[in-house]
Parts: sequence; C-alpha cells; structure tokens
Amino acid sequence: MPELRKDPIIGRWVIVSIERAKRPSDFKAARPEEEESGQCPFCEGHEKQTPTEIFAIRQADSKKDKPGWDVRVVPSISPKFTIHGGLDRRGIGMYDIMNPIGAHEIIIESPQHLSDISQLPKEKIELIIKVSAERLIDLEKDPRFKYGLLFKNHGLKAGGSKATKHIRSQIIVTPVTPTRVKEELRGSLFYYRYKERCIFCDIIRQELDTETRVVMDTKHIIALAPFASRFPFEIWILPKKHCSDFMNIKKDEINDLAVVLKTVIGKLSKALNNPPYNYMLHTAPFRRDERAGYWTTIKDDYHWHIELTPRITQVAGFEWGSGFYINPTPPEDAAKYLRETEL
Amino acid sequence: MPELRKDPIIGRWVIVSIERAKRPSDFKAARPEEEESGQCPFCEGHEKQTPTEIFAIRQADSKKDKPGWDVRVVPSISPKFTIHGGLDRRGIGMYDIMNPIGAHEIIIESPQHLSDISQLPKEKIELIIKVSAERLIDLEKDPRFKYGLLFKNHGLKAGGSKATKHIRSQIIVTPVTPTRVKEELRGSLFYYRYKERCIFCDIIRQELDTETRVVMDTKHIIALAPFASRFPFEIWILPKKHCSDFMNIKKDEINDLAVVLKTVIGKLSKALNNPPYNYMLHTAPFRRDERAGYWTTIKDDYHWHIELTPRITQVAGFEWGSGFYINPTPPEDAAKYLRETEL
Repeated sequence: MPELRKDPIIGRWVIVSIERAKRPSDFKAARPEEEESGQCPFCEGHEKQTPTEIFAIRQADSKKDKPGWDVRVVPSISPKFTIHGGLDRRGIGMYDIMNPIGAHEIIIESPQHLSDISQLPKEKIELIIKVSAERLIDLEKDPRFKYGLLFKNHGLKAGGSKATKHIRSQIIVTPVTPTRVKEELRGSLFYYRYKERCIFCDIIRQELDTETRVVMDTKHIIALAPFASRFPFEIWILPKKHCSDFMNIKKDEINDLAVVLKTVIGKLSKALNNPPYNYMLHTAPFRRDERAGYWTTIKDDYHWHIELTPRITQVAGFEWGSGFYINPTPPEDAAKYLRETEL
Repeated sequence: MPELRKDPIIGRWVIVSIERAKRPSDFKAARPEEEESGQCPFCEGHEKQTPTEIFAIRQADSKKDKPGWDVRVVPSISPKFTIHGGLDRRGIGMYDIMNPIGAHEIIIESPQHLSDISQLPKEKIELIIKVSAERLIDLEKDPRFKYGLLFKNHGLKAGGSKATKHIRSQIIVTPVTPTRVKEELRGSLFYYRYKERCIFCDIIRQELDTETRVVMDTKHIIALAPFASRFPFEIWILPKKHCSDFMNIKKDEINDLAVVLKTVIGKLSKALNNPPYNYMLHTAPFRRDERAGYWTTIKDDYHWHIELTPRITQVAGFEWGSGFYINPTPPEDAAKYLRETEL
C-alpha cells in the first residue's frame, strides 16, 4: 500500500508509492505508449473488462455489468486510494504519515466510443451530472472521507490516457482536505468575514455588470473567463444562486449546467482545435461538523464551481517556484472569441 | 505593458499580456519550433545579439559586450517584468491590478556552447553562484522590488527553449512576494512559533540521523530527497548552517554548493538520461522592514534552499485541482540510486 506523507513546511500531502516503485530505468527508456486498440474496456459490450460496477443508469430490463446503460461507474483499475482499512495516522520523528484511505472511481460517460463530451446530447450530459452528484453523496457517508474531487483529464498533455480516449471523468475521495481547496476556503472565508458576502457571488455580480469576461450566461449557470486567469482560455463555471455544495444541485441547474458544458467545451474544441484540458469541481468539504477549525468553511462563505483549464502553454520554473503565472491571452479576448465562435 | 492582476480569492498574482495578446490561431497551428541554429546569441563572440550586458566576470583586458568573459548577465529580450515606471496599484471594482514593475535577467553561465551545467569545472560553477548572489544584492536595492526568484529551465518539458540549449539561469524580480513563497514563509513561521527552532534545521538534523534520504553530504551543503517529494527524484539543496538569505552565502558554502550542483546534476543526467528539470532558489524576501505583517519572515525562521525537480511525470487534473501529488518513486529509493550512481 502506498503512503500518504505530509510536507512539514506547507502541509501538502503527497501519495508515495512504496511497493511498485518506479525505478530510474522506467523513466529512462521512452516507454512505448499504447495506441487506441479498438478493445476499449469502457465501451458497451465490454463490461467484463472493468471491475464490477458501483452504480449505473440502466434501461429497466438490463442487468448489472451487462449492456443497456447510459452512464456507468466502476472502480479505477489503478486506484490512487484504497477503500479498505484505517487511516493509522502516525509520526516518524517530525514527519507525519497515514494510510491512503479513500476511493477512486471512473464515471464512464457514454456507452458509445466518443472522445468529446460535447458530442453527447444535452439530456445525456444531465445524466452524467446527476450521477456525479449521487456518487459524491454516497461517498460522503463514509466518516473516514473528508473531500471528494471530481475531475476530467482530456488529451495526453492533460494527463489523459493514450490507450483509450473514451469519455470519462474521475472521482478521487481523500481522507484530508487538499491544500488547494483549503487555500480557496481560507480566502473566501477571509472575504466573508470582512464583507459578510460570498466572494463568488460578488464576482458573478461584477462580471454580469461588466460583461467583457462572460463566456455564456444562462438562467441558473454562468461561464466566465476569470479576471486573473492563469492560463489562456481558462474558464470558471458557477451556479448563479449561492450554494456551497455541488451535491445540492437542483434540477434546473443541472439542465443549464449540461447546456453550458456542452456549449463551452464544444466552442473550445472548435476554437483551439481540440485542445487538451482539465476540469475540476471545487466544492465544500464533506464534514460539516468539523467546521470550527481555522481551515474549514460554512455554507455562506463558499460557492461551488468548475474550473476548466486548457493545457496549451508550458508551465516552467518561474511558475513552479513562485505560483505566479504568465498568461499571454487576456481573459477579455478569450471570452469574446468564445462568444463569437459558432457551433 | 502587461498587467499584474490579483486573484481575489487566494491572492495569487498573474501577469496578463494586454498588447501582444496571443490569439486562438497562435495556439491552433502547431507552431514550427525553431531548432538550434548554430547562431546562439549566448556564445562568446555573439555579444551583439543580446541586449547590453548588466554585469560580467571578465578577463582584465576585455571590454563590455565583447569576448573575454566567464559569466555574463543580460536583460531578457522578452522580459516578463519591466524596470521602468511606478507600480500604480489600483482597483477595478473588487479586483486589484498593478503595473508589472520588476526585472528579468539572463545569467549566461558559460562562454562555450554547453547544454549541461555539470560539464563545467567546479571553479566556473562557483563564479555562477557568486554572480547570482551579487545580482540579487544589487536588485534588492530598488525599493519597489519585493522578491527575487532565481531559476533554471533545463529541457523543453521544463520550459527550456528549443532555439538554443546554451546553459543559463534567470532572475525574475517581482513587486510582490509570490504565493508559493508566502506559503512556505507562513509554514516555517508557524513551526518556529511553536518549537522556537527553524523547521529546515530540524529537517536537516533528522535526515542526517536517518541517512536514507541523503543524496550528498558535504561540510557546508547537503542535498536530500525530501520526505514528501512531489516528483520522482525531487531534490532539495540546503546550507547546513542556518541562514535565511542566499545573498549572505559564504565562500566555503559557495565552494561546497558548486561541488553539490555539479555532482547531483551530473548524476541525475546520467541516471535519468538527461531529464528535463527545473531548479528554483527559495530565499527570504527583500524587504526586512516590512516584516511585521502576517506574511513576512524574520531571519531565524526561514532557511534558504534550492528545489530541484525533474519533469518526468505528467501533472494532471487531480494534482492541479487538489495540490495533492502522486509520486511513483519513494525518495528513499531515489536517494539510494543517486548515491550509487557513479560519475
């Protein structure tokens, strides 16, 4: 089992493999990367090639691990976290360590072998959003888990796999709240204490007023290019009504989110010629009863959102060392270009 | 002039180009990357191809911007920051903005066209270290500047240029202390307040005691694979005697640092077949008179060091979204392998 180790200076957790360690020779040889083989384990009819399904939206007469589904959730075959055991938090001198208890699930977004979520009809994207929320609701019940991260890796440069491009997203559930999330929770709490308003609600108000960075506006969901975008064509997608928890998403919001995802990703694909991208859901941590501490949040000061970042520029030493990003494309230009892109 | 924009939630600054914005078409076309042309602007004899030098270590009879130097410092031809003007901090509604006042210098590390710093004799690496410290000392004098970041991009995947591989490092001086640096300053101050000891000094003591993660140990400088390494073969290089400021480096430390850099980078190159890597100096911020605030540091609680990170694994959505890293190589294995690598 790998170990969860904590950097003692900034409190960042790292998962370190212990058993199947990569030796230098694994990196030295340019590994022959698998090409798409046609034997995609995620396609309908290949259900036996994945671990047993955890959840699926199925036709009434279909059976578990058989064809007849729209969205299917399976455990990762190379999980970063394991569901069994205890955390066993312990120290080694000044260092902290624990077991990587958590979950790692794959949400297979289509029974057909599609490579772009925007190819799906809006109704099918609604199902994916529903399933994502339901999986997080279910995983939250385990008291060992603190945070659920939903994300997608699209394209090789975004960490996608070469073996199959079949559309899917992933949920990783961790026994600690990740550093980046804490940073955001801390920042929005700080603002809330000063203003007694949600910072994300204020951002939405100002962006709707200015309009220059709005990529797409629907009744319930807005997509915008953030003022201090780190990357060209970075996009945030937020519910317009304040809500800290993605798990509380309402039917109307699901409908609009499906339209926004389909449209925005479709436009990005067209404008940038199918760029690699990641998106990640940022939502409040699971444990509301632990909110007293410095790092935690309350429902009024946080606002769930999706951060979508195309990977078309190189991150180098300056960015890594400083956390300072250099963005060659103003978000105003990116938003305008995407507004004008026709599908 | 680009703009420095602040993310209102986590306080991260981003440089956004305004004038020479990259249009989507710039990303869409796979740009033909320049190959090494033999017309390297950094080679001795090509001094006219760079902006006028800022500083150089020269033979006694040589002239500025002419041959006859060992280390030469020139302004970047595509600077991220500009030396002229005022910060002009201002707000746009809830957002903060300022001018990107700062400096961006290139330290040309050799008159010969070498591509690996470990090819240099130790005495020449000592000169590079001296020049780096002297440039930071000089830049610190400008009261507009808050932080100096020294870094190196080696190889394309680490943000190095394809046009020339000539060895060089860069200094970027910024009018704000970068987020990553603040995070580390905050963490080490927190530890110092609790323990009344420097956290880095404690790490060095524990690592020397355990030995398993020590890559190289000299009288004044140590190289180790950190306990919670984010990346395979990540290495930190630290002075063994407590010091917050790289600018105060002593002659004996320079000598040992040159040996450690030459050896460790030489071993990495051999073990991993010339991997792309970045290294960055983390040192205390310039302004000691601003140390009263929450973010600032005093000389007892911070400890300068160099973070060296090979870029041999892919960072994907999970890492970006969480700040949680997955490292397939235990630092103990990496350190052992490098200790046993013979040059």
